[in-house]
Amino acid sequence: MRSPLKNTARAQPFEQSQRDAIYRAIDTRRDVRRGYLPEPLSEDVLMRILAAAHNAPSVGLMQPSRFILIRSHEVRSQIHAAFNRANQQAMALYDDERREQYASLKLEGILEAPQNLCVVCDPQTEQGHGLGRQTMPETIVYSTVCAIQNLWLAARAEGIGVGWVSILSPGDLHTILNIPAHVIPVAYLCLGYVDAFDDRPELERAGWEHRRSLQSVIFDETYTPGTKP
Amino acid sequence: MRSPLKNTARAQPFEQSQRDAIYRAIDTRRDVRRGYLPEPLSEDVLMRILAAAHNAPSVGLMQPSRFILIRSHEVRSQIHAAFNRANQQAMALYDDERREQYASLKLEGILEAPQNLCVVCDPQTEQGHGLGRQTMPETIVYSTVCAIQNLWLAARAEGIGVGWVSILSPGDLHTILNIPAHVIPVAYLCLGYVDAFDDRPELERAGWEHRRSLQSVIFDETYTPGTKP
Repeated sequence: MRSPLKNTARAQPFEQSQRDAIYRAIDTRRDVRRGYLPEPLSEDVLMRILAAAHNAPSVGLMQPSRFILIRSHEVRSQIHAAFNRANQQAMALYDDERREQYASLKLEGILEAPQNLCVVCDPQTEQGHGLGRQTMPETIVYSTVCAIQNLWLAARAEGIGVGWVSILSPGDLHTILNIPAHVIPVAYLCLGYVDAFDDRPELERAGWEHRRSLQSVIFDETYTPGTKP
Repeated sequence: MRSPLKNTARAQPFEQSQRDAIYRAIDTRRDVRRGYLPEPLSEDVLMRILAAAHNAPSVGLMQPSRFILIRSHEVRSQIHAAFNRANQQAMALYDDERREQYASLKLEGILEAPQNLCVVCDPQTEQGHGLGRQTMPETIVYSTVCAIQNLWLAARAEGIGVGWVSILSPGDLHTILNIPAHVIPVAYLCLGYVDAFDDRPELERAGWEHRRSLQSVIFDETYTPGTKP
């Protein structure tokens, strides 16, 4: 229940060390593609990070996210083959120098990470009674993305690497994982203990791209690039 | 740089009190629709939570998220009118008893919260050189949702309420906020200091919906509701 406070009361922030922990997780989270260790995650920690995902916000409290935990080498091998097909197609779109650079990037850890997790969204669940999803039905799948980000941050705090593999055809995921046609594959994640976390994003370290400034993405009152509040 | 560790080294988790802080933010985060206080956020805290959003993962490091900070009463009033129109349409879809319950719910704090934030996604930015977005281009907008969840958790730790208003027509957001046609409005958020955080989701407390169990959303190896790992 809400505390029976006067209007002048204000909810307090977490204490400084706890706030620091939140920003530490956010700032040091990485998309991990290498350095996975063969030891499987303990059930305890696996359930803690899945609970973090499950406790994410969802439109109308519909909780549309489902988590397919993949540990068999056979299934991971099928996914890895699907990645290779999609990656060859993606690579073909780049010219010369960029293509060479692309080919040198390590973009997934499907077979090295002992756990893979396919996070899917069931947009047809009756839970939530449709609230909030009439005008922006895309908030259903956004709910699942919020769950993924919760898991990612909890995993970082637990010392667990997470890598999001987006170079996969959704059709392959449907087929290999027996996902019904109406259910949306949102993310395919590699999960595992790792030897280390990089201090910078891998794509920045590899010279693929730089990060932009915070001020360049904040606009005042309306969509007005170039201004700032 | 990666530390030159042996293969047997393992990245350590955060210390227990820091891990607790992450789970505290995740478990006590709420979608806040009431109890906003009139005092504006300090610039310091506003920039910290926007930086948390900006530091989210993005496909190919493309950083497509842009943040429109709305503080004027005039703009918020226009958005509030758009909410009212969308909400009347949504309400009309329910029958009798559900409609009455729906009408009693408080679903937004647009005028009470001194700051509103429209988070949008520019899918045409060249940043990232297209990496990772060939097979699943929807990961572009998912990147923006990750940013929103980062902001939501940082805000909770700062004692700041966040409410996601999904009962708005994207067309109204484009018009009122001058958003170019190719840019996607992803979320409209209310932000502010609050008197208190509820200990349960508002829709659960109001009897609209219950939360489901964690075990019911975890599947083993393939999409198999009813099994668990």
